[in-house]
Amino acid sequence: MSLWHQARRSARLNPSIIREILKVTEQPGVLSMAGGLPSAETFPVEAIRAACDAVLSQAPREALQYAASEGYGPLREWVARHLAGKGMTLGPDQVLITTGSQQGLDLIGKVMVDAGAPVAVETPTYLGALQAFNPCEPIYASLAGDADGPLPGSISALPHDAPGTRFAYLVPNFQNPTGRVIPEARRSALVAAAQAARIPLVEDNPYGDLWFDEPPPPPLASRWPEGVIYLGSFSKVLTPGLRLGYLVAPPALYPKLLQAKQAADLHTPGFNQRVVHEVIGNGFLDRHVPTIRKRYQSQCAAMADALALDMPEGTEWQRPKGGMFFWLRLPAGCDAMALLPKALAAGIAYVPGAAFYAQTPGHAADPRTLRLSFVTLSPEDIADGVATLGRVLREHLDGTRDEAP
Amino acid sequence: MSLWHQARRSARLNPSIIREILKVTEQPGVLSMAGGLPSAETFPVEAIRAACDAVLSQAPREALQYAASEGYGPLREWVARHLAGKGMTLGPDQVLITTGSQQGLDLIGKVMVDAGAPVAVETPTYLGALQAFNPCEPIYASLAGDADGPLPGSISALPHDAPGTRFAYLVPNFQNPTGRVIPEARRSALVAAAQAARIPLVEDNPYGDLWFDEPPPPPLASRWPEGVIYLGSFSKVLTPGLRLGYLVAPPALYPKLLQAKQAADLHTPGFNQRVVHEVIGNGFLDRHVPTIRKRYQSQCAAMADALALDMPEGTEWQRPKGGMFFWLRLPAGCDAMALLPKALAAGIAYVPGAAFYAQTPGHAADPRTLRLSFVTLSPEDIADGVATLGRVLREHLDGTRDEAP
Repeated sequence: MSLWHQARRSARLNPSIIREILKVTEQPGVLSMAGGLPSAETFPVEAIRAACDAVLSQAPREALQYAASEGYGPLREWVARHLAGKGMTLGPDQVLITTGSQQGLDLIGKVMVDAGAPVAVETPTYLGALQAFNPCEPIYASLAGDADGPLPGSISALPHDAPGTRFAYLVPNFQNPTGRVIPEARRSALVAAAQAARIPLVEDNPYGDLWFDEPPPPPLASRWPEGVIYLGSFSKVLTPGLRLGYLVAPPALYPKLLQAKQAADLHTPGFNQRVVHEVIGNGFLDRHVPTIRKRYQSQCAAMADALALDMPEGTEWQRPKGGMFFWLRLPAGCDAMALLPKALAAGIAYVPGAAFYAQTPGHAADPRTLRLSFVTLSPEDIADGVATLGRVLREHLDGTRDEAP
Repeated sequence: MSLWHQARRSARLNPSIIREILKVTEQPGVLSMAGGLPSAETFPVEAIRAACDAVLSQAPREALQYAASEGYGPLREWVARHLAGKGMTLGPDQVLITTGSQQGLDLIGKVMVDAGAPVAVETPTYLGALQAFNPCEPIYASLAGDADGPLPGSISALPHDAPGTRFAYLVPNFQNPTGRVIPEARRSALVAAAQAARIPLVEDNPYGDLWFDEPPPPPLASRWPEGVIYLGSFSKVLTPGLRLGYLVAPPALYPKLLQAKQAADLHTPGFNQRVVHEVIGNGFLDRHVPTIRKRYQSQCAAMADALALDMPEGTEWQRPKGGMFFWLRLPAGCDAMALLPKALAAGIAYVPGAAFYAQTPGHAADPRTLRLSFVTLSPEDIADGVATLGRVLREHLDGTRDEAP
């Protein structure tokens, strides 16, 4: 008998395949397109330094003391105003500051997901959401989709007898991993289908501000305020290392999420909340985020050019309209996981797409898919990295043909 | 049918009674002895400001980027050295940095506690631990104790057929709420009982460095490294607002706790970890913590004097040897919860002891108990506050006698 008897849910906690891959790709000399990190070049270091000074001068005791679980009042008000600008209807009392939006996913799972309850996710979906929900032992329903996102019919088909599907988790803007944005018409149809089936939505929006030519359509939450939990983050527009995100919940659900937050870590660091509020006051993001968009857009263009030049025939991708990622489908006969060691040996890294599929009956991961990030390499390194990927793929395909009888 | 179907565990999430009380006690003019906050006078603001500058000068990109879920390497090494100095045997790879030690409790619950599983706690115990474990739906076993802590026989009597009691949660040093320290002989006996019954221990030590005349005996974890999870915190010796704690787990359990950590919030803010490491390097705590001890010791003495002067006959308490709290048992006929409105009307606040008892069959909360903090008021305010408490109690007791036939 083991001394440390673990809970049943512990079997659903597993090492992240991405994490394991990233360990390998952090070797010097590897051109990594595997990361999900924003570019450190975009971090406003001097603004953060000035904000630290200001907070420690103006309110050191308040910033360093225990604080309210809901979050710092002025920051909650800022979030409410910011989201009202995106068309959402909400009050600051619906805003819960979280330790990164990853924590928001953890709290949602805790409050809403029983063991064996259905939770719907996109195909593929954000791996971190699966990790957050897994300890609650849901049964995943994998939503069928196309280039515009999940199909409304796949929402209608979900189990919705009480208690039914607890929620459908969607990343409408520049999704991780596929990069696709759900267009206006599909958003309307998805919300209508969810309303008809009475299936709540969890809308995760870490990338929405990283658009290139035009902003994405208004959030799902603006269309159905009482039926959507909305998650936002400062990680991609400011810095991830301060671990600052937020969720917006309907009043019916907010108190339980707040109590779960309090039980989880009492509150998100008050110092960090005040520093970020100090930075973003006075319209800072209106000046700062366009510089990130411009940078990422040129990196995206470099990757699009390189892919067009270097990918073997039969490779499929869509050029993203924002965000950080290309999603590739390799030609028949290519398995992205099996090819990764060859890619690493050639000095490049990516994430095999298989990591992003929920384990669910009837939906196998597509082994031909992979994710490439374009935000942490220079345009020159992107060109080199994609050329190397193309060479690895062509060598593999040539080898496959040689082996054929 | 409600749109938002909640998980069964959500029924175990509830507003904190302390939180509700603190809202009332934060009214201006109330002398509050209710808080569990450290004194903001002890926060090393200038050292933190200098550390922010240093981190943002030396490693801004690393500090502001995503980071490892385990925590910042040099901080983990510091923790391992610090705890080795307390007699523990451990490596840095057993240290997991958490978003406050509250998060450590959340992770332990996730990994170890199934619904309906027994978890043993002290009588009374730290309320935040109950809140952290509650969503996992344990059945609490309330350990019988005396002035030296839980009785070893109460550990031996716990259910220990496989899977049995998942762990016993103990706060050996200057416990919240009772202030008591478990002496050497009782520690040995408790560990021996736990080893014999094969019941792991969770040792929570936020207050251990706040001793007055002599340090507490070595940790339980130093006696049974493979059977104890140890939790520590920077909240009471530095500042709570940076939300920085840690746990030390046996190698058999560490990987699952790490995976739970990653799913919960990816990692604790890297900036905060580097700032604290910058502050505490070079022996800072060896100079800083004695100033906290001295301050709290004089406040403790003021409260001890005032209690001796002002409490009605029949009131019981022990003078703490460290930490932040007195635990009082009022004379027969006094209910601390019922008396709280009168106390607030008279301008003082405390926390009724009932908040600190696990709901468990066969152990009712003692309604005569209450907790007083001595660290956030000046000695003069402590004298005034305790005098007011004494007056409220005597008026109540006089009224009770008048009403008697």
